[in-house]
Amino acid sequence: MRNLNSQKVPVPTLERLATYLTALAEMSDRSVQTISSSDIEMLTGINAAQFRKDLSYFGEFGRPGIGYDVEELRSRLAKILKVSRTQPVLLVGAGNLGSALVGYPGLRAQNFHIVAVFDNNYNKIGRRLWDLEIRDVADMAAANRELQARIGIIAVPSNAAQEVAGRLVEAGVRAILNFAPAPLKVPADVVVRNVDFVQELAVLAFHLSEEEEADPELVRGIL
Amino acid sequence: MRNLNSQKVPVPTLERLATYLTALAEMSDRSVQTISSSDIEMLTGINAAQFRKDLSYFGEFGRPGIGYDVEELRSRLAKILKVSRTQPVLLVGAGNLGSALVGYPGLRAQNFHIVAVFDNNYNKIGRRLWDLEIRDVADMAAANRELQARIGIIAVPSNAAQEVAGRLVEAGVRAILNFAPAPLKVPADVVVRNVDFVQELAVLAFHLSEEEEADPELVRGIL
Repeated sequence: MRNLNSQKVPVPTLERLATYLTALAEMSDRSVQTISSSDIEMLTGINAAQFRKDLSYFGEFGRPGIGYDVEELRSRLAKILKVSRTQPVLLVGAGNLGSALVGYPGLRAQNFHIVAVFDNNYNKIGRRLWDLEIRDVADMAAANRELQARIGIIAVPSNAAQEVAGRLVEAGVRAILNFAPAPLKVPADVVVRNVDFVQELAVLAFHLSEEEEADPELVRGIL
Repeated sequence: MRNLNSQKVPVPTLERLATYLTALAEMSDRSVQTISSSDIEMLTGINAAQFRKDLSYFGEFGRPGIGYDVEELRSRLAKILKVSRTQPVLLVGAGNLGSALVGYPGLRAQNFHIVAVFDNNYNKIGRRLWDLEIRDVADMAAANRELQARIGIIAVPSNAAQEVAGRLVEAGVRAILNFAPAPLKVPADVVVRNVDFVQELAVLAFHLSEEEEADPELVRGIL
């Protein structure tokens, strides 16, 4: 998250918008026409006041005493998050994580389409990852002249991440989701979000109280 | 992130501590003995003032004009994040994402050991995921009486996430990393962090400027 430029809208608000959007898509699938902010709270676990506050950044929504029209709210949020139409995404790294991402059903449901996958391993190039042919990372810029993707995902080992970031930027990508636990240097007009699994677990571990921590001595005593 | 109880230490500080720890492990591998806050800035992309501020929550660190002893700082941060010794982790979901997590080299390097993987699919139970035998999710509580894990990872589809969370809590887990885009209801003494790939991409998409957004009409014109 640390490379994200400061914006008027707080990043946690944007994260929650995506959550509302997922809930609205579900409601739409079930043909629900109108929802209240307490419905949203029940569906997302985000409290109703927070929901109203988050929407307030983007104008007027809903009607007092009636609630929110599901389709209207959905389409406005999708427009705000620029997912009202298909958003093509480049993936670099055809390993386990890359495979998990291409196979992740939620991405396509929310209009993010991974349109190409790249790797530098000649044993992988030319093979398929799900329905995509794995392409040579060296061909990225040429490929993206047709694909016109502006979002890229880095799912390669740390030591390759910076080079891949450079290639993505060169190919025209302006937003990068980085799964490599390595800081990326990118031009000021490129935004980066970092997802670091170790970091996530470390924050959780911190919140374990001392007495609840697993004690290897104790475990050995039991066995 | 939304289920994390408020604590004196800000969550972003904890996230950065994990980043410092990764950098320190690297420096230690290269036998570096002392580092400065500007070295940290170069290694992590986090600025030196932020680094010093983050440390200030936990007491006195480093010596003016000399810097920080790599081993000492590393061991103190590891202790704060409770990764100074092996932290066992339960994984639920032996799909692509689960496979990516078990195979992720960074976890083990930072003392997080996925010690057991569970699934409810009888075609998977008994088979292996990397070096782990996939176990029946129904056996989780019994298995964890020996394993004593306090951290669990949910890598199952959304519609199964709440049930899995209940099982983890019943088995003694007190900290959950949730990859399913579904809100979890857990007791107050359990912390949850949510990683939602769609949310991450949506926040990035928001930051694409309008003119940089891919325009399907334009692309069609070029082809």
